[in-house]
Amino acid sequence: MTANRQIVLAELPGGSKLAPEHFRLTEAAMPTPGEGEALLKIRYVSLDAANRAWMQGATYRSAINAGDVMAGGALAEVVESKDPSLKPGDLVFADTGWQEYAVLPARKLDKVARAEPLTHLLSVYGVAGLTAYFGLLECGQPKAGETVVVSAAAGSVGSIVGQIAKIKGCRVIGIAGGAAKCDLLVRELGFDAAVDYKAGNLFKALRAAAPNGIDVYFDNVGGDIFEAALFNMNTFGRIACCGAVSGYDGAAPPAGPRGVPGLIVTKRLNVRGFIVSDFYAKRDAALAELKGWVESGALKVREDVLEGLESLPGALIGLLAGENVGKRMVKVA
Amino acid sequence: MTANRQIVLAELPGGSKLAPEHFRLTEAAMPTPGEGEALLKIRYVSLDAANRAWMQGATYRSAINAGDVMAGGALAEVVESKDPSLKPGDLVFADTGWQEYAVLPARKLDKVARAEPLTHLLSVYGVAGLTAYFGLLECGQPKAGETVVVSAAAGSVGSIVGQIAKIKGCRVIGIAGGAAKCDLLVRELGFDAAVDYKAGNLFKALRAAAPNGIDVYFDNVGGDIFEAALFNMNTFGRIACCGAVSGYDGAAPPAGPRGVPGLIVTKRLNVRGFIVSDFYAKRDAALAELKGWVESGALKVREDVLEGLESLPGALIGLLAGENVGKRMVKVA
Repeated sequence: MTANRQIVLAELPGGSKLAPEHFRLTEAAMPTPGEGEALLKIRYVSLDAANRAWMQGATYRSAINAGDVMAGGALAEVVESKDPSLKPGDLVFADTGWQEYAVLPARKLDKVARAEPLTHLLSVYGVAGLTAYFGLLECGQPKAGETVVVSAAAGSVGSIVGQIAKIKGCRVIGIAGGAAKCDLLVRELGFDAAVDYKAGNLFKALRAAAPNGIDVYFDNVGGDIFEAALFNMNTFGRIACCGAVSGYDGAAPPAGPRGVPGLIVTKRLNVRGFIVSDFYAKRDAALAELKGWVESGALKVREDVLEGLESLPGALIGLLAGENVGKRMVKVA
Repeated sequence: MTANRQIVLAELPGGSKLAPEHFRLTEAAMPTPGEGEALLKIRYVSLDAANRAWMQGATYRSAINAGDVMAGGALAEVVESKDPSLKPGDLVFADTGWQEYAVLPARKLDKVARAEPLTHLLSVYGVAGLTAYFGLLECGQPKAGETVVVSAAAGSVGSIVGQIAKIKGCRVIGIAGGAAKCDLLVRELGFDAAVDYKAGNLFKALRAAAPNGIDVYFDNVGGDIFEAALFNMNTFGRIACCGAVSGYDGAAPPAGPRGVPGLIVTKRLNVRGFIVSDFYAKRDAALAELKGWVESGALKVREDVLEGLESLPGALIGLLAGENVGKRMVKVA
């Protein structure tokens, strides 16, 4: 059988920006499944800002160390199974890492039903779609007529958050970097307004775009954007904390946003962090609702698919620089 | 009739520490109630860290300006009433300001049932007790066996928070300034442990006192203490944001605590700000429960009563410096 090509994290980036030299392409022997395990062929690897956070230390998963195959979620196909729950051809979502093949215990595999196109299993019907759905609806609790703001709005999660908020009857403002992304949010995805955080004075721009204040802020980024939103929040507003990508690529931020906790008190805000798996008990109902919206055309799915295992390091580096629109993934096979 | 002695905020402190020269004692004519109003004789003025925050600008109440009678809540007795809802001798709680007499519309007066001693109406049965009760139980949601940490633990609210958490079966750690206060928390108020934030390395001291991590943090202070607690929180922990006294007396803090929002995400924390009046619909039930605990001896009430209108500026300055134990108030008449 052929060898298994892998991308290894050659060196931890520490407080530096992630760069191609932190990775190395290697080959390993094809792995063999033992009892209760399955051999998987990786089809599409998901690129996520959290991949970079894992290099900073343990979070909700253990840290990645130098010399490890780079970790990452992927859609994979079962090639050989030594567990009764799986058979060749089954599709699974798993943390396979960046490689062509992986052997994992069946209990670490999340079997998914085939969908057309397959890529939707990593975008709207995957972690991105469910993160948007649960974060907005469970943590954000938006009501019709309220103002919802989402950061990284052209990204995989943000682009879905904004559209769900529109479906729920809210006024929706996206924060994104650059005029092209802002334009896309309003023209293609139906956002009411978009604010370019690179254009300066975000606080004022946000106040102008949300003259009645912000009721729900879905935060993907932390840092200065979190602070600008915090100062524009309405009393009894809710902040759903999904990630803090502004702090992932480089040294940990020296301080947090001003106004914490003072404004949380005076505005009586509810600031809640979540991870999508916290809500997996409600996953089937969420997927059914997402499918309905996609099929009716109410929810447009944006994907950004790159090709080939070797494009993974650049795909992650570019994602951290904000170059993608919609869900970024790499087709490995 | 005699004149009405008043303490006026002569000058806004701005970004400086509050000092005696910011206040001035004056005399005004005795006010006369109009239709729908009452003349009140102020008995006890409540001292609260929020008094200082009001000088920084509008919060949940309008800002105080130079030349105004200093604002403040007080327990007062009706002397003369031109409203059918009140009669001489009735006790009310109201924002009377720092003076001997005040005229206010009846709708701004909160009638309270007489209690013995009267001071309990400003401590355990007043804003302090209800703030502790609702903040801990509604925002903190403590469960038996969990670890609860409260800052400003020897203060009016903190001393009650810790005791309610003990009643609910939690392990309770208080953060306070100085060995004497820490000693009192453990020996007199039944806290399991106390941490002196002035002794240095709060993060480590807190980790040693809470080896299983913190499930509920009741924050009265913000700043570095908030940050030390945040880094010790357990997954799915809750932070009740009650105030941010560390940022009240002086310039606004240049930045917020590190770890916001990153740790809020990875630990899936719920950080919630509140004001006691948000929960007033449930006030009667809360007061009944507090009374039961006081009468059974499960809840000890600490009060710090100073004498005379002219002692008010020093009483507030001292409160901001942390010199009081329990609820501080000034007996005016």
